[in-house]
Amino acid sequence: MNTPDMNYDEICIHPIGTVCNDLQYPPLVADEKGLTHNHTCHSPIMEMATRQDRRSEIVIREDLAELLDGLEGFSHVIMVYWGDRISDDGRRLHKVHPAGMTQFPVQGIFATCSPARPNPILITVVRLHTRDKNRLFVSGLDAVDKSPVLDIKPFVPAQMPQEDVTIPEWMRMVMEEFRH
Amino acid sequence: MNTPDMNYDEICIHPIGTVCNDLQYPPLVADEKGLTHNHTCHSPIMEMATRQDRRSEIVIREDLAELLDGLEGFSHVIMVYWGDRISDDGRRLHKVHPAGMTQFPVQGIFATCSPARPNPILITVVRLHTRDKNRLFVSGLDAVDKSPVLDIKPFVPAQMPQEDVTIPEWMRMVMEEFRH
Repeated sequence: MNTPDMNYDEICIHPIGTVCNDLQYPPLVADEKGLTHNHTCHSPIMEMATRQDRRSEIVIREDLAELLDGLEGFSHVIMVYWGDRISDDGRRLHKVHPAGMTQFPVQGIFATCSPARPNPILITVVRLHTRDKNRLFVSGLDAVDKSPVLDIKPFVPAQMPQEDVTIPEWMRMVMEEFRH
Repeated sequence: MNTPDMNYDEICIHPIGTVCNDLQYPPLVADEKGLTHNHTCHSPIMEMATRQDRRSEIVIREDLAELLDGLEGFSHVIMVYWGDRISDDGRRLHKVHPAGMTQFPVQGIFATCSPARPNPILITVVRLHTRDKNRLFVSGLDAVDKSPVLDIKPFVPAQMPQEDVTIPEWMRMVMEEFRH
């Protein structure tokens, strides 16, 4: 294949809504030195491990309420939100210790789930409990309060890989840290 | 919970790379009338059904090549790309027939996988075959040639819902149309 014409022009987007929950501080913070645990949190690892239990309300712009019609039929939805607490220094990182855990060697940002990345478009599959007009009530969202929401999609298991999925040993060990 | 302060300011992002493949026309097109099949394609449904077989090369900006280090350990990655072929009219749609199939009643855009949405941030899990410096060779990507890439993340099965996932009957029937 030929090298494509590169088109790196700026893309401008407008949030469609906002996250509302009681998570005031992100468990991970990024600066020019890397990704570290935010000690404003009582326990950053516990914060990440227990995210399944956290309830959030997603408030969508009123003029877009109709776009949610039909979403009630899905048990889970894909939340696409913006990591607006990530600093410019954080967006310039190339490698980090996965989940800020220094016992694991650094990896390239695109191999990690770091919220600090060139474009902090963050994606989490959450459980949808109910919808009321332009509001969704969900659990399992790891977004900080007031994060801008960019998109919402239905979670459809048949669109996920069905077999032969492998991950490296370090990622298996990171996930093990989050079991509770 | 209180209503959050809404922050709908514009967010500006820069693509990290470009898709290179032989898909010249998107199978679905959107205009002010809705989402329809693109008859420039030989068979839009077949195009969507056979996407697992399509090979793409993802060319990342050379200054970001190091951010891919470690991604080789994953069999599957999450491609986040921009639907740059979606018109402004397409981005203003509120409801569409799922996958442009008029036999299914219209649904709100956020309940569908329509590429036409307020922010066409498109997400597909693809198989990663190899990496060579700033290039990834993947299969299963439904992006059109030259689509701007916004982010790449590892696919980690443990982060997906493990049980009790339900989808509505209409989505089950749409997915059935794509079996081949």
